[in-house]
Amino acid sequence: MTTIFILNGPNLNLLGTREPEIYGHDTLASVEAACMAKAKALGFAIEFRQTNVEGELVNHIHDARGEAQGIVINAGAYTHTSVALHDAIKAVGLPTIEVHLSNVYKRESFRHHSFISPVAYGVICGFGPASYELALEGLSSILKKTGKA
Amino acid sequence: MTTIFILNGPNLNLLGTREPEIYGHDTLASVEAACMAKAKALGFAIEFRQTNVEGELVNHIHDARGEAQGIVINAGAYTHTSVALHDAIKAVGLPTIEVHLSNVYKRESFRHHSFISPVAYGVICGFGPASYELALEGLSSILKKTGKA
Amino acid sequence: MTTIFILNGPNLNLLGTREPEIYGHDTLASVEAACMAKAKALGFAIEFRQTNVEGELVNHIHDARGEAQGIVINAGAYTHTSVALHDAIKAVGLPTIEVHLSNVYKRESFRHHSFISPVAYGVICGFGPASYELALEGLSSILKKTGKA
Amino acid sequence: MTTIFILNGPNLNLLGTREPEIYGHDTLASVEAACMAKAKALGFAIEFRQTNVEGELVNHIHDARGEAQGIVINAGAYTHTSVALHDAIKAVGLPTIEVHLSNVYKRESFRHHSFISPVAYGVICGFGPASYELALEGLSSILKKTGKA
Amino acid sequence: MTTIFILNGPNLNLLGTREPEIYGHDTLASVEAACMAKAKALGFAIEFRQTNVEGELVNHIHDARGEAQGIVINAGAYTHTSVALHDAIKAVGLPTIEVHLSNVYKRESFRHHSFISPVAYGVICGFGPASYELALEGLSSILKKTGKA
Amino acid sequence: MTTIFILNGPNLNLLGTREPEIYGHDTLASVEAACMAKAKALGFAIEFRQTNVEGELVNHIHDARGEAQGIVINAGAYTHTSVALHDAIKAVGLPTIEVHLSNVYKRESFRHHSFISPVAYGVICGFGPASYELALEGLSSILKKTGKA
Amino acid sequence: MTTIFILNGPNLNLLGTREPEIYGHDTLASVEAACMAKAKALGFAIEFRQTNVEGELVNHIHDARGEAQGIVINAGAYTHTSVALHDAIKAVGLPTIEVHLSNVYKRESFRHHSFISPVAYGVICGFGPASYELALEGLSSILKKTGKA
Amino acid sequence: MTTIFILNGPNLNLLGTREPEIYGHDTLASVEAACMAKAKALGFAIEFRQTNVEGELVNHIHDARGEAQGIVINAGAYTHTSVALHDAIKAVGLPTIEVHLSNVYKRESFRHHSFISPVAYGVICGFGPASYELALEGLSSILKKTGKA
Amino acid sequence: MTTIFILNGPNLNLLGTREPEIYGHDTLASVEAACMAKAKALGFAIEFRQTNVEGELVNHIHDARGEAQGIVINAGAYTHTSVALHDAIKAVGLPTIEVHLSNVYKRESFRHHSFISPVAYGVICGFGPASYELALEGLSSILKKTGKA
Amino acid sequence: MTTIFILNGPNLNLLGTREPEIYGHDTLASVEAACMAKAKALGFAIEFRQTNVEGELVNHIHDARGEAQGIVINAGAYTHTSVALHDAIKAVGLPTIEVHLSNVYKRESFRHHSFISPVAYGVICGFGPASYELALEGLSSILKKTGKA
Amino acid sequence: MTTIFILNGPNLNLLGTREPEIYGHDTLASVEAACMAKAKALGFAIEFRQTNVEGELVNHIHDARGEAQGIVINAGAYTHTSVALHDAIKAVGLPTIEVHLSNVYKRESFRHHSFISPVAYGVICGFGPASYELALEGLSSILKKTGKA
Amino acid sequence: MTTIFILNGPNLNLLGTREPEIYGHDTLASVEAACMAKAKALGFAIEFRQTNVEGELVNHIHDARGEAQGIVINAGAYTHTSVALHDAIKAVGLPTIEVHLSNVYKRESFRHHSFISPVAYGVICGFGPASYELALEGLSSILKKTGKA
Repeated sequence: MTTIFILNGPNLNLLGTREPEIYGHDTLASVEAACMAKAKALGFAIEFRQTNVEGELVNHIHDARGEAQGIVINAGAYTHTSVALHDAIKAVGLPTIEVHLSNVYKRESFRHHSFISPVAYGVICGFGPASYELALEGLSSILKKTGKA
Repeated sequence: MTTIFILNGPNLNLLGTREPEIYGHDTLASVEAACMAKAKALGFAIEFRQTNVEGELVNHIHDARGEAQGIVINAGAYTHTSVALHDAIKAVGLPTIEVHLSNVYKRESFRHHSFISPVAYGVICGFGPASYELALEGLSSILKKTGKA
Repeated sequence: MTTIFILNGPNLNLLGTREPEIYGHDTLASVEAACMAKAKALGFAIEFRQTNVEGELVNHIHDARGEAQGIVINAGAYTHTSVALHDAIKAVGLPTIEVHLSNVYKRESFRHHSFISPVAYGVICGFGPASYELALEGLSSILKKTGKA
Repeated sequence: MTTIFILNGPNLNLLGTREPEIYGHDTLASVEAACMAKAKALGFAIEFRQTNVEGELVNHIHDARGEAQGIVINAGAYTHTSVALHDAIKAVGLPTIEVHLSNVYKRESFRHHSFISPVAYGVICGFGPASYELALEGLSSILKKTGKA
Repeated sequence: MTTIFILNGPNLNLLGTREPEIYGHDTLASVEAACMAKAKALGFAIEFRQTNVEGELVNHIHDARGEAQGIVINAGAYTHTSVALHDAIKAVGLPTIEVHLSNVYKRESFRHHSFISPVAYGVICGFGPASYELALEGLSSILKKTGKA
Repeated sequence: MTTIFILNGPNLNLLGTREPEIYGHDTLASVEAACMAKAKALGFAIEFRQTNVEGELVNHIHDARGEAQGIVINAGAYTHTSVALHDAIKAVGLPTIEVHLSNVYKRESFRHHSFISPVAYGVICGFGPASYELALEGLSSILKKTGKA
Repeated sequence: MTTIFILNGPNLNLLGTREPEIYGHDTLASVEAACMAKAKALGFAIEFRQTNVEGELVNHIHDARGEAQGIVINAGAYTHTSVALHDAIKAVGLPTIEVHLSNVYKRESFRHHSFISPVAYGVICGFGPASYELALEGLSSILKKTGKA
Repeated sequence: MTTIFILNGPNLNLLGTREPEIYGHDTLASVEAACMAKAKALGFAIEFRQTNVEGELVNHIHDARGEAQGIVINAGAYTHTSVALHDAIKAVGLPTIEVHLSNVYKRESFRHHSFISPVAYGVICGFGPASYELALEGLSSILKKTGKA
Repeated sequence: MTTIFILNGPNLNLLGTREPEIYGHDTLASVEAACMAKAKALGFAIEFRQTNVEGELVNHIHDARGEAQGIVINAGAYTHTSVALHDAIKAVGLPTIEVHLSNVYKRESFRHHSFISPVAYGVICGFGPASYELALEGLSSILKKTGKA
Repeated sequence: MTTIFILNGPNLNLLGTREPEIYGHDTLASVEAACMAKAKALGFAIEFRQTNVEGELVNHIHDARGEAQGIVINAGAYTHTSVALHDAIKAVGLPTIEVHLSNVYKRESFRHHSFISPVAYGVICGFGPASYELALEGLSSILKKTGKA
Repeated sequence: MTTIFILNGPNLNLLGTREPEIYGHDTLASVEAACMAKAKALGFAIEFRQTNVEGELVNHIHDARGEAQGIVINAGAYTHTSVALHDAIKAVGLPTIEVHLSNVYKRESFRHHSFISPVAYGVICGFGPASYELALEGLSSILKKTGKA
Repeated sequence: MTTIFILNGPNLNLLGTREPEIYGHDTLASVEAACMAKAKALGFAIEFRQTNVEGELVNHIHDARGEAQGIVINAGAYTHTSVALHDAIKAVGLPTIEVHLSNVYKRESFRHHSFISPVAYGVICGFGPASYELALEGLSSILKKTGKA
């Protein structure tokens, strides 16, 4: 069965309680539930993880090799500072979708640059939790096109 | 009936014949057909337009006011240079999704800045023609959430 | 009779409905009326135009040659991006006043640079529609000083 | 009676003798006379001052609080370097018009940035001494609109 | 017969009357005549066009596909700001020569960057109308070398 | 009882042995002891932690939510590079004081920017271990003013 | 008896009336009173001054030589622009604490650079009038450590 | 016996499988074996470690104090972003050689800056696994010269 | 008889063997032969030189004074770094054409700036050896227009 | 008799006591004495002044008009920040020599830019008090050459 | 027999007498002797040259073609400014090792950029004369791997 | 007898014929004569040289070691680009005066940076040939102060 890793970076564990005017009232658990439902509809299994440690996020990406056919990643703040994530995604070679809950281009300028985008297959931002669902759908179309799902 | 304007900027009329290694083999007509199908599934009517003239693209955005509930825009090269489009989208005040066929962050650095992103609701890039379909789906979820569709 | 071209750029057709907290509730028609009244008081005829197309704005400037003794221009968003307008004003050689409704220096940094200012005679911004009236008055004093009105 | 402070910064005491090809042949005394005439026509009293000391210019702005309903300021060279003037104008909270005799955008690039513009109501430059008269007129329309004159 | 599109951008219609100390006294008509003569000598047909609208220039480049074997383009001010022209030339894939009447490197720094150069075959500037003739000759040698003329 | 989290970042475990000409001879244990004494005098309980891992520092900040009324943080090198700490402090919403042992503005330029300062309540640097004691005192006055201690 | 100069720069005379949402409702007189009380507790005499003139602030720093053992300085807007203050503090050689009422890093970017920080002993910002009290306390600990108080 | 710590940063665990066109086919195990052989020839013991977590890399550097006479470090992606590693190496004070498998100057510009270089004794890059062996040899000559090996 | 100096800078002696995918298979000798033929057709004598030493290139330019009526220069790498060549060309005052074999704007960004362009009459690049021939032709038209050939 | 104004800016009153490793042990009085001696030898009268206030320095420059034939100015810290001094020197139009005691190019980068240099006749730095004497001598040669002394 | 060119740039002839705190007490002759010994051990012949002239260094690189199998180059100051050396190394196509005696990253920022690194096989710096020996060893391993030695 | 090397860089051999509006009508021979006269008055021997080759200028500086007690250098265009000259002057360790005929700060911005200034004792510019004479005089005072002349 096709498996997708959905990886979440720093501070996303606080979702729903943190700055709701930016991130909304959904919690990470409800995001996971929505992803589960969408994945089921698309015939995917998902592995949903969160960590605040950059290096553990690198480990999770490494874990996807052999276990998954694609990655959806919301690297949070590490998006903007982590060359290590850039390298990990490039090294693992799986189609990876970068997602953000908020439209990062409406926020501070240090959130406008991403080290992940140049190694991502596609980027989706601004739709709140629906960003994840659109990413799964996009991944589904990619995997179908390349005969991997 | 909910109507969505799907607006296309310069050179997109050449789609399918222009740099297929970047943009793929779909033509603008086939993109329109796919949008039509997706729109039908979502219960939307669509108005699909293309122009090479920046000011006409401004006009099309103006036209959406009163006629449409949302906009999907692939402004092509004007994405990176047009303050006029930024102003038009802000003035019209409809939820607008910025789409790109290619992952612009993998290309020349002058394509990494968008004047549209700060006034867009969300941004989707890199999925080829599927970017448009995901945008329609995203727009659908936004309009439902705000009771406009 | 002394004729002044009053040229308006992109999105100004939406005036009064667009972001009233920045641009106020006057419409372009009421601005035109106020200009008409002021022009009459100063003994000027005016030609009042608006377009969303950069190249048509270039055309309008060209038209002023031979038909007008001065130009008042609110080039809107093209102020910040158009070398073509810079060249057109320089080529035509008429005294040109750059106006803005809002104080552009209170807004996004990309609105702080103008390609028109270095070829304008003077710049007036921040007074709302009164910016146009002050421009006409300023133009009147210039033309008197140089014996052209 | 409505009183307007007209404040002049460094080197403006040399007006008429300094670089006449840029600043013209008017002296500061003739500028004051023209302002006086215009003020009279508008029903204003004016307080006209000049100083070469940045801190005294700050003092003059402070003096306007309680004594005046508006400020016209030509801060000369301090326009480009003085955060203190920025703060003073913001602190005093009176509608303030920034004026320049020359079109500063035609000159050295270090004259293109103003610390005063972001706290000014409006900006007028390039009309020679007429810049002051237009500023008074603009101030008149503002004060009328807000019922303060 | 080999056909060359010679495309001219904004303000070039004023040639001969606009800033003659920079652009000389030749008119666009005399440039066209000289091109005609040179083309005849080289065995080329030419299609000579001018427009002030960026998007129409994009259209003209598109028109060259199928109708011409090469392009000579003087995009005027759009040279420095238009990503759309960059994309159009790249999409059409014809050998394109960028020409300028003046030596742009002797002028304002915003004229030192060209979005066209990276997609042009060669660049010629500074020779006045002779820039066009040299471009035709250069194009002739390219087309001969590649067996297309 | 009011509890303050005092959080220390990378390399601070080496305090007293590392570059004493910059950081002095106090050890982290003696800093903790001084904080303990000061806290006792102010009626605070303190939780004193150190880690070299950025993500664990994020965790510690999260822990403060619900357990503490304020945070004193010396994020060491992560001060200058961590958007994740910026987000964590903003998310948790407790009054947070940024401290540094040395005056960072006397050192390399890459230490002059802090991602923590824009989300901190106040900043104190240069007093050696006394920076922590002043921070506790400052926090005490804030909590008193807002009725939280 | 140990004497501390407390020096205040431009616009601080307006304290309490100027932008209370940033600077609070304390006046400079109440800040002076609080400093007086704190100084008394620490066994210090204080000399409290304010001026809007940069050069007078330089003079005040010079005066401290021979009369004082330390300086607390809130140079206001001159913090960001004055090399002269930088030189004065360095020349006088007394331990100097830079204070700010507000957290300057939360404000405009031109307030993020300080010419005083590299020659200050320590920096304290964001605590409102308490910044001054903390500075006196910090100065006390420095002078004790070096046997000067 | 002289001991050298050989420390490896993020993604190096994937060596041999990750982008072989850049990093070659050697695995981290074969690099360790080659280092072992070279160390033996030079009379060194080695401690060979890898981690994906920045803070653990800091810990490893701290561990070297007291246990080792020198460090060879390939910090991978953290080379370019980690002030914490810079501080750790400086704090520990052992001669440290920075190595890279690839010639980082042939790659993306964000790999051209290293926070480690200014605190390293020497830098070696581009020789593949031989970079490590050359580093050990270089370290040997340094330790001999300073009588530490 | 009209004489033209054709000057070649560093590494051009390797032409034909160096990176043929950029510079083609022509050797410097064949370029000289083509120039000779073209010169003959135009009625010019030529002096063709090459050197790898910047200062000798300066000398060659000096030599042209009195001996030649124009210069064609391909300064190779010194184009981008040599203020000395800029000064030499300006000092000698002969019409000088800058040529490049390749289109330098398609290559590394450090090749996009030329110290020669601002003192050249015209610039021609991208035509391979034909760049030289076009330059001679361009020079011929200039010299004719100014009555010097 | 030819009179030279020798003007000194902020902190120069502390000369001899301030950072002697940079400025030496001479006092401003001894500099004045040396200038007096040199002036006598050259047949000049001198007016020697110092102030810490930027605006007074502007006043002193204004005073030179009519009273002096030349100016020697050491504007100290204001050299690097004062557009007002730039304007004053330009307005007064006397030959002005900029002097510095130290070689400013060996110090912090913010001392490498001077607003005075572009309006000075010549610049002399690094010779300690002898910089002033060389300036007088240089001024003497200029005045002789132009017949003004 | 395998021959290696060891090329030295400007000021290296002064080695041993020039700034020994940076470059040590070895002379260029002793460096050559050490290289000779190392080369003998590796079975290489070496050609060891020094010049202060950039263009001669270009010549030496050209000479290596046909005569040598590899290059070790310490281009000294030209490392940071010479596009000509970049081109020469690329043109000649031999494996080239860039060496520096000092760790250039500990010095002025203008020494942090190298035009040679992007065309070098590997880079070694900071080991004093041992940098050369390590380079020879590295070159030996490269040549063995590619069967050229 | 005290000997001073007076070294001249590229294009100075053309002095008197090159851009006389910038450099005046003196030739290098007349500058040498004036230096000779001044040197005689000061009791110096001089060695006066000129070259267009950067590396030869390095050689001349090296020659000064052992033969001279000071250097006066006008490196012309190499001033702005040559790290090699910077290194040579630093290596030789003689007091060196940088001179320029023109006031370089009045010219193109690429002439505002000097690689020589940070290693020069003093800098003199703008006095025409008198710059050299002032430099000799300055050098005389330095050598006297340090007992070397």
